[in-house]
Amino acid sequence: MPKDQNLRDVMSFAAGQWIGPGEGARSIASAITGEAIATAGNDALDVQAMLGFARDTGGPNLRKLTFHDRARMLKALALYLKEHRQPLYDLSFDTGATQSDHMIDVDGGIGTMLVFASKGRREMPDGHVYLDGPVEQLGRDGQFMGRHIATPLLGVAVHINAFNFPVWGMLEKLAPTILAGVPAIVKPATTTCYVTEACVRIMLESGLLPAGALQLVTGGIGDMLDHLDCQDAVSFTGSAATALKLRANPLLLERSTRFTAEQDSLNASILGPDAGPGTPEFDLFIKEVHREMTAKAGQKCTAIRRIIVPQPHVDAAISAISERLSATRLGDPRLDTTRMGALVSRGQKRDVLDKVDRIADEAERVFGDPDDFAVDGADRDKGAFLPPILFHCANPDSAQRVHDTEAFGPVSTVMGYRDIDHAIQLLNRGKGSLVASVITNDREVARDITVGSAAFHGRLYFNNRSSMKEATGHGAPLPHMVHGGPGRAGGGEELGGIRGVMHYMQRTAVQGSPDILTAIGGQWIKGAEEITDKPHPFTRAFNDLQIGDTLYAGLRTITLEDIETFAHFTGDTFYAHMDDAAAAANPFFPGRVAHGYLLLSFAAGMFVQPDPGPVLANTGLDTLRFMAPVEPGDSVSVRLTVKAKTPRNDDYGEIRWHVTLTNQKEAAVAEYELLTMNAF
Amino acid sequence: MPKDQNLRDVMSFAAGQWIGPGEGARSIASAITGEAIATAGNDALDVQAMLGFARDTGGPNLRKLTFHDRARMLKALALYLKEHRQPLYDLSFDTGATQSDHMIDVDGGIGTMLVFASKGRREMPDGHVYLDGPVEQLGRDGQFMGRHIATPLLGVAVHINAFNFPVWGMLEKLAPTILAGVPAIVKPATTTCYVTEACVRIMLESGLLPAGALQLVTGGIGDMLDHLDCQDAVSFTGSAATALKLRANPLLLERSTRFTAEQDSLNASILGPDAGPGTPEFDLFIKEVHREMTAKAGQKCTAIRRIIVPQPHVDAAISAISERLSATRLGDPRLDTTRMGALVSRGQKRDVLDKVDRIADEAERVFGDPDDFAVDGADRDKGAFLPPILFHCANPDSAQRVHDTEAFGPVSTVMGYRDIDHAIQLLNRGKGSLVASVITNDREVARDITVGSAAFHGRLYFNNRSSMKEATGHGAPLPHMVHGGPGRAGGGEELGGIRGVMHYMQRTAVQGSPDILTAIGGQWIKGAEEITDKPHPFTRAFNDLQIGDTLYAGLRTITLEDIETFAHFTGDTFYAHMDDAAAAANPFFPGRVAHGYLLLSFAAGMFVQPDPGPVLANTGLDTLRFMAPVEPGDSVSVRLTVKAKTPRNDDYGEIRWHVTLTNQKEAAVAEYELLTMNAF
Repeated sequence: MPKDQNLRDVMSFAAGQWIGPGEGARSIASAITGEAIATAGNDALDVQAMLGFARDTGGPNLRKLTFHDRARMLKALALYLKEHRQPLYDLSFDTGATQSDHMIDVDGGIGTMLVFASKGRREMPDGHVYLDGPVEQLGRDGQFMGRHIATPLLGVAVHINAFNFPVWGMLEKLAPTILAGVPAIVKPATTTCYVTEACVRIMLESGLLPAGALQLVTGGIGDMLDHLDCQDAVSFTGSAATALKLRANPLLLERSTRFTAEQDSLNASILGPDAGPGTPEFDLFIKEVHREMTAKAGQKCTAIRRIIVPQPHVDAAISAISERLSATRLGDPRLDTTRMGALVSRGQKRDVLDKVDRIADEAERVFGDPDDFAVDGADRDKGAFLPPILFHCANPDSAQRVHDTEAFGPVSTVMGYRDIDHAIQLLNRGKGSLVASVITNDREVARDITVGSAAFHGRLYFNNRSSMKEATGHGAPLPHMVHGGPGRAGGGEELGGIRGVMHYMQRTAVQGSPDILTAIGGQWIKGAEEITDKPHPFTRAFNDLQIGDTLYAGLRTITLEDIETFAHFTGDTFYAHMDDAAAAANPFFPGRVAHGYLLLSFAAGMFVQPDPGPVLANTGLDTLRFMAPVEPGDSVSVRLTVKAKTPRNDDYGEIRWHVTLTNQKEAAVAEYELLTMNAF
Repeated sequence: MPKDQNLRDVMSFAAGQWIGPGEGARSIASAITGEAIATAGNDALDVQAMLGFARDTGGPNLRKLTFHDRARMLKALALYLKEHRQPLYDLSFDTGATQSDHMIDVDGGIGTMLVFASKGRREMPDGHVYLDGPVEQLGRDGQFMGRHIATPLLGVAVHINAFNFPVWGMLEKLAPTILAGVPAIVKPATTTCYVTEACVRIMLESGLLPAGALQLVTGGIGDMLDHLDCQDAVSFTGSAATALKLRANPLLLERSTRFTAEQDSLNASILGPDAGPGTPEFDLFIKEVHREMTAKAGQKCTAIRRIIVPQPHVDAAISAISERLSATRLGDPRLDTTRMGALVSRGQKRDVLDKVDRIADEAERVFGDPDDFAVDGADRDKGAFLPPILFHCANPDSAQRVHDTEAFGPVSTVMGYRDIDHAIQLLNRGKGSLVASVITNDREVARDITVGSAAFHGRLYFNNRSSMKEATGHGAPLPHMVHGGPGRAGGGEELGGIRGVMHYMQRTAVQGSPDILTAIGGQWIKGAEEITDKPHPFTRAFNDLQIGDTLYAGLRTITLEDIETFAHFTGDTFYAHMDDAAAAANPFFPGRVAHGYLLLSFAAGMFVQPDPGPVLANTGLDTLRFMAPVEPGDSVSVRLTVKAKTPRNDDYGEIRWHVTLTNQKEAAVAEYELLTMNAF
């Protein structure tokens, strides 16, 4: 069959080998021409060998690195991908996507990776144990403490991705997984897996990833899920039906294997009651709705399926949306003039049309005719083209299908609401969504909708005249913010910065003595060993300092004259420092007391090492608490201990010092954490 | 049947009514005498009415209150329970528990409630929206921001509890649920439900809980789980088999209903290689093992099932544990001399004996004979008595049952290890546990075991000579620390302070303008409205201040003389302030610069209102960052804005001020959050 020779062989990358299509392979058609362009799948793939390679080679390789090492690796990988992304654009047209869709997918994926790289460096330690929350004192005298840590799962992450974002869909899961220190096996949807395969090839060719960190299954995944256990995790994106089938796997349930699902949902957008025609918010609303209906031809899990507007503005909304839709040119996405491409496949088009029929039972079609529309530069019937279709549902309270039927294409339904309570009711009838947006300039509306429906949503997006220049769009999941949602949206969560990394780590409560917890967490805890037999810590470089290095300095006696001098010099003549009787009437003070800032300043005078040295600057201070008043005649001494060390660039790093000021009775008068930048 | 008249009717509390046993009721026997003491269960219970009452009455009643209101309610409830707890002790003897077991159950439960009450006041806002993590700037100019919030689920929490802790088991779930603002339906295990029922009666009689907040099912729960949806949550504690049956419910899976399981697991304790006979750690280890085997007659999900000791110390450990066990008197728990009571039922005893037989295939019984033991003050064969039984497994690598068979009674197995890696291997063969303990005085051992096996554990407990006086015990879940674990332990989490409250709340990413996010979260965000037309904010009481109230003060010019004066007064003659050439050589400074503390002090001088007034004290400062150097001749002004308000007692509350220092070029030179205590 000579035709087959033109088909691209989409390969899998399994246990270190590229493996081509084999028994059970299926062909993949272009969304534009309908012709077969590739084949993928091989029933002989050895899924147990893949799991073993990830667990025994990928995991240990990744866990040898620190969080910072892995963050740097992600950054390098993202920059390499950026440099080499053109072939991904070229390939993606056949999925039906336009160049601006590619930007969401390819550039959006790379950007997500960069945010995780940056957060890994800024918000995680340069070590192997992540600290989750503060220390808890569990015993009376501070010799038994608790804290929470997170460590990487010792298994493998299996990522099962949807067809609509073959690159972003992979990278948004891969970045937190790699940062956590866990190897991944990626299984993209077969329809667009040739784009994912190309992206995996680029990443592997970069040589940046250690062996076993990344494997790829194109085609079916076999019985891989049956071989997972409590150290593995499955992250699924796709339809509710497939999610349910997978999560009901009795072996996954029995072994408590982590399973996260992000499912399509009936996301809504609400036009605020304040935001009628003529306001900037109305125009903004129309623009957001139009974008969500047409970007990726509406094949986004976050797209707006329900358009909820004040009853009086229903007609205005329908006509404004229709006007914009009618100006949207469909066609071959390779054409510059094309604003909307095709659905991913004719199968997908049939599915959307079935859903359109269901919705049509309860709503009137007010824009778009699937049997009558123009397509530029392609054969309308061979490709998977479908025009945007807008419905109006006049009775959204009695309707059911408009609230539970997701036509995964350029299809949405307008419905009117009477008041905010009614809008909230309609919103929540989605029974759990990834996102809802509210376009309003009224803070009370924003607050009421939040209180009434945040629990049904993974994300609430507010936009108005103040934020519209910077707003990132209803449909865009950002790496900083969680993505996922309750109920119909799958009950899962992804992204959200370090929250998304935690999905691939185990949180563990750790209890023990301060010395033990210091050794485990890599951060000094009050009560742990103080190393005091070394030279002044300010004379020692970043690399020479160790956790627990401690300086004691002082005493210095605080005189009434000190307080007077400080008050008049700074202008801080607060009565507690100046007027004995008034101070004594205050519940916190015995009489005149020293200024808190006087104590901080004197402490710095006590511990400073004045000559040039490795300490470059005092960059900040955290969690200062004044614990007892200091009266004239009291004396104060200071203890300064290296609590944590975090490299910041090639030249210097941050030292976090734990500082306690103590009076002559050995009572703590103030505690804080001081930050300095120190040369290596 | 005259005998039945002596049976206690254990009732359910459903939709506001106490309902007695009915069709399908079963009788409950005393663990001590084997005689029936109560009946419970009623197949006619209307579970849908219960769900409706919780959702429509309990939820709204609870959500009207703020987090602080609910925290105060929990505290009052805990104190009321403490006052009225004697009947719970009296009843509990029939479950087989001793007075010291009751303390774990009853007092432990009350203590847990008090910790949540306290954390609710200290760590949550006095409002309806909990803020999770910092603000994320999503747009270039700060007019589009993101943050995460948590709001209560709008449904009901169904708590399915184990038999072993009829009071603690309820209260440890109820406290975070109520604090979240979610009503609960409690279904205790039938065997000990009469104690739970008595506790619920006390709580309801207190009149402290609003209608619908708490309901009780004694006996079977019917098809309640089939009627849950995405706003509900199930928290299960008990056996893996029951957990699997419940979590596989297709309706729960389809609706993504939250399901948390805390299952029995094969918890281990490791004796460190440093902790041989003669060390304080060895004695401590023996003591902890003995306590875990005998408290609650070993019926604790956290009890030590595997005792992992250095191979050379196996014999010493066996003989020391056996010695302690032989001194442990079994008997009627009402006797003062009794140290260990009965298992909960003869059925439970049969189950434990089956497991003992299984373990005996792989291990030698070295202490305890189920057919030959003494019981004080009770009939050994009528009650559910069982002596402590210790096994020794000589080949733990080839053994399987000792790692997966949980005999839920006073049964444990000693096994030897060669080195730390071997100990970690054995530990992890539990395939996921609630807790492991390590008794060691060697920090490296603690660290190595953590890195090697934290991912298999919900909690790691370290103890040694430093912490032993304060340590809370291997088996004690604390409200501050998460309780749960991966794999065999169920893959869930409870407790852990506010983490446990989050299980009953939905986390939602919120994006919008600073004004919108300020209105939603109740905390001022940079860029949001500043209210500047009011009197000096330091002259206004806590209750008169509102979020966004702002004071601008300054400019003040910083002279070289100011810097000199401050340096010599404080002693802080760091070269960056004193030596122009040396300062200029530093990567952060253009030349001599002002001290950071000089800026803070001058800022206070600018914004202070010196006369007595509602500001009682400056209590602290958070997240100070110096952003740009201030040179001699620069001028500085200050902006001070009310960011958050938190009541602290009946007289005053904390104001958190957002402060920015700006130079004459309007560049920020420092930012921080200032804390003051203000009178109401």
